[in-house]
Amino acid sequence: MDVVTYIEAHKARFFADLKEWLAIPSVSGNPAHAGDVRRSAAWLAEYLTGLGFPTVEVWETGGLPAVFAEWPAASPDAPAVVIYGHHDVQPVEPLEEWDTDPFVPTEKGDALYGRGASDDKGQVFFHTLGVRAGMAAAGADAPPVTIKLLVEGEEESGSVHFAELLRARRDRLACDAIVISDTTMWSAEFPSMCTGMRGLAEAELALHGPSGDLHSGSFGGAVPNPLQGMATMLAALHDDQGRVTLPGFYDDVVALTDEERALFAKLPFDEAEWLRTAGDSQAAYGEAGYSTLERVWARPTAEINGMWGGHTGPGTKTIVPRSAHAKLSFRLVAGQDPVKVQEQLTAWVAANTPPGLRAEVSVPGGGVRPCFSPIDSAGVKAARRAMERAFGTEVLFTREGGSGPEADLADILGAPLIFVAVGLDDDRIHAPNEKVEMPLLLKGAEAAAYLWDELATALR
Amino acid sequence: MDVVTYIEAHKARFFADLKEWLAIPSVSGNPAHAGDVRRSAAWLAEYLTGLGFPTVEVWETGGLPAVFAEWPAASPDAPAVVIYGHHDVQPVEPLEEWDTDPFVPTEKGDALYGRGASDDKGQVFFHTLGVRAGMAAAGADAPPVTIKLLVEGEEESGSVHFAELLRARRDRLACDAIVISDTTMWSAEFPSMCTGMRGLAEAELALHGPSGDLHSGSFGGAVPNPLQGMATMLAALHDDQGRVTLPGFYDDVVALTDEERALFAKLPFDEAEWLRTAGDSQAAYGEAGYSTLERVWARPTAEINGMWGGHTGPGTKTIVPRSAHAKLSFRLVAGQDPVKVQEQLTAWVAANTPPGLRAEVSVPGGGVRPCFSPIDSAGVKAARRAMERAFGTEVLFTREGGSGPEADLADILGAPLIFVAVGLDDDRIHAPNEKVEMPLLLKGAEAAAYLWDELATALR
Repeated sequence: MDVVTYIEAHKARFFADLKEWLAIPSVSGNPAHAGDVRRSAAWLAEYLTGLGFPTVEVWETGGLPAVFAEWPAASPDAPAVVIYGHHDVQPVEPLEEWDTDPFVPTEKGDALYGRGASDDKGQVFFHTLGVRAGMAAAGADAPPVTIKLLVEGEEESGSVHFAELLRARRDRLACDAIVISDTTMWSAEFPSMCTGMRGLAEAELALHGPSGDLHSGSFGGAVPNPLQGMATMLAALHDDQGRVTLPGFYDDVVALTDEERALFAKLPFDEAEWLRTAGDSQAAYGEAGYSTLERVWARPTAEINGMWGGHTGPGTKTIVPRSAHAKLSFRLVAGQDPVKVQEQLTAWVAANTPPGLRAEVSVPGGGVRPCFSPIDSAGVKAARRAMERAFGTEVLFTREGGSGPEADLADILGAPLIFVAVGLDDDRIHAPNEKVEMPLLLKGAEAAAYLWDELATALR
Repeated sequence: MDVVTYIEAHKARFFADLKEWLAIPSVSGNPAHAGDVRRSAAWLAEYLTGLGFPTVEVWETGGLPAVFAEWPAASPDAPAVVIYGHHDVQPVEPLEEWDTDPFVPTEKGDALYGRGASDDKGQVFFHTLGVRAGMAAAGADAPPVTIKLLVEGEEESGSVHFAELLRARRDRLACDAIVISDTTMWSAEFPSMCTGMRGLAEAELALHGPSGDLHSGSFGGAVPNPLQGMATMLAALHDDQGRVTLPGFYDDVVALTDEERALFAKLPFDEAEWLRTAGDSQAAYGEAGYSTLERVWARPTAEINGMWGGHTGPGTKTIVPRSAHAKLSFRLVAGQDPVKVQEQLTAWVAANTPPGLRAEVSVPGGGVRPCFSPIDSAGVKAARRAMERAFGTEVLFTREGGSGPEADLADILGAPLIFVAVGLDDDRIHAPNEKVEMPLLLKGAEAAAYLWDELATALR
């Protein structure tokens, strides 16, 4: 029995089981649903046991539990692969905007509606079908690589205990590659793989002037104004090419390759439509020499997230304000380190503070490291072959502009990331009427079935 | 009997009367004291009648009353002079910081403590002694110029009905000069006259980007950030010489003369001490080529009074904010027009709005016109001679950085301003423990006595 035949034969049961899991409201961000998250973990553990995983464990954390399941390869020399996903879901409010009950999974045409259908229960679930389809097609009773499925329970509430869990379980999670199934493809017609996510460094900048607000009639124009100082400093944070001016900021950036740029350019990107999704922005803007997709996916940024100082209420108040404040964040790409960027900012502020003002930089945390998988790496190439076999067409590449816990996985487990996912941008994850395309979940299962053979060879 | 002898003979009664007036808590900013402001006006009207003013009237406004008193010159050809002051006072809170009851006038050494002692009842009052001393010395029963004393009752609450009053009473207030007795001198050792006050133009600037805050992971670096746009625009509002960059901004400015700069430079200015009063500012700053006093008194400014946008609360929020806002104000000097400056700003904003953002300029009102009296004008020269006769030393010049209703007086009555005042910067006006130096009030009376002779000649 080949992979496609196996999947076709088992799909009814696959979706029936998925609906049972989707019916559990495992909202990790709402303490009232903590019991449901635990029930979701228990349900998954029992399900995986039933599928034949030799090892299935519920891993407690300081918060809500993850599920770990291992199916060892027949050969002790085979590579090991961690599959990452999560079984918790986003809140469903505003409930009145849902057309169906978010926890009564409902089919409409090819789509299956319900919270978690795409993010991320559906995408975890296709692996459960894929691994069995691969073994059935090979007539084997073990996969060609050791599979270690790790399904987190706190991703939608900040993965606060995840790095700790990874460190504590590092030996059990030892692997040669990490497959992430929690992202999206470009579209059903243009299947793609994500190859990186931007990291994040945050900082707050304060400029202090006089000890109190001054009357601008008595002092205006004769002492430095902290708001003017702030405007001057932040205007200088970018040059006229839209590049960030922190010395050293681009030094560690892994440049886009010509091949990756060419593959990005193959994606049918409609900038006018994209600007509509960007809050009806009137024009694109950014670093000179890069396309909008390249700017969002593969170039670092400096962004002012908030700024305040002086009189901000109704009416007028003619003062020289005592201080000015700004919240800044930097999206980081492959090669950059958030702590290093925070240090670059601190040094730049010290060197560029206007005379007579006192600057203060505070950093709220260590930031998020970017993650990146080169498109010519063995793992990415193997996964792309598996995807192309399943979809029967060229698989392109994307990246993501934001960040999840993926960099922690790569850093702590010391293995490369491979993004294999079949969600779509219009799946409405985190929003009312989340859905997943059922044919794509089956394509995902098929790709997953081929993936282990491809990786067994590629990672050997 | 000469002027000095007359003043010496009448000073005890003068201070006794002043204390009676100071005991009336004519706080115009507090509606609970409206009756006291009316009582203050009635007291003054009765007092002036008692002194012999042929005409004394209480002038009602839409709010609290002013007092008008006229003493015509003997000659119908004599010039007419309006004397401006006010009989309302600032609130006294925080009361616990007063060493004496603010409405129980109390002598300590040469100082008389009480709310209004310097601002402005004491300074109105020296004219009542001065005019009689002048007449007594001349053996005349009328002053050499027609004196029109106008004592406002709403100066400390914004002079909201004052311009209306001036327009309504323009005929009665027809004059050749306006003497303002509501400012300060440099010091008792360095008597001086104010020659101008800066005006004010205000505006609010908004920059609008996306229709809502955007996720900076998905959109950061690829659409314009309104806060970055605001920083860029406001940084460009000054050049590297500290000059305002609005086209035409300096075109109408009446330049400081070499003589006025030389006279400013004679003032014993201690910049370190001034910086301490400027909220312990760490350094002076401003337009290149001008001293601190010149910057505050005689050069226009652009000041950011408030700025806000995006996330300003605790914690971090990685957004591209939908909008950015700033409150701006411009201090204006001789020759500048607030409405014209607001138009210059609007044009500059239109020409400098970053691509992809939409700008909005709103103006809260027509602003305040600057006022200015050239030091070589006949009125100023005459008043300086009167001051020098009284003080027996060279009288220097100052200006003031802020604004009261003085420009309205000059504009509506169509006459030049002459500032004759003996308050000191350390009189603590608007603050607890306000006081006036009694010897300076007597010098003020003496200068006022000489002033009418000087003006009778100078303005003929």
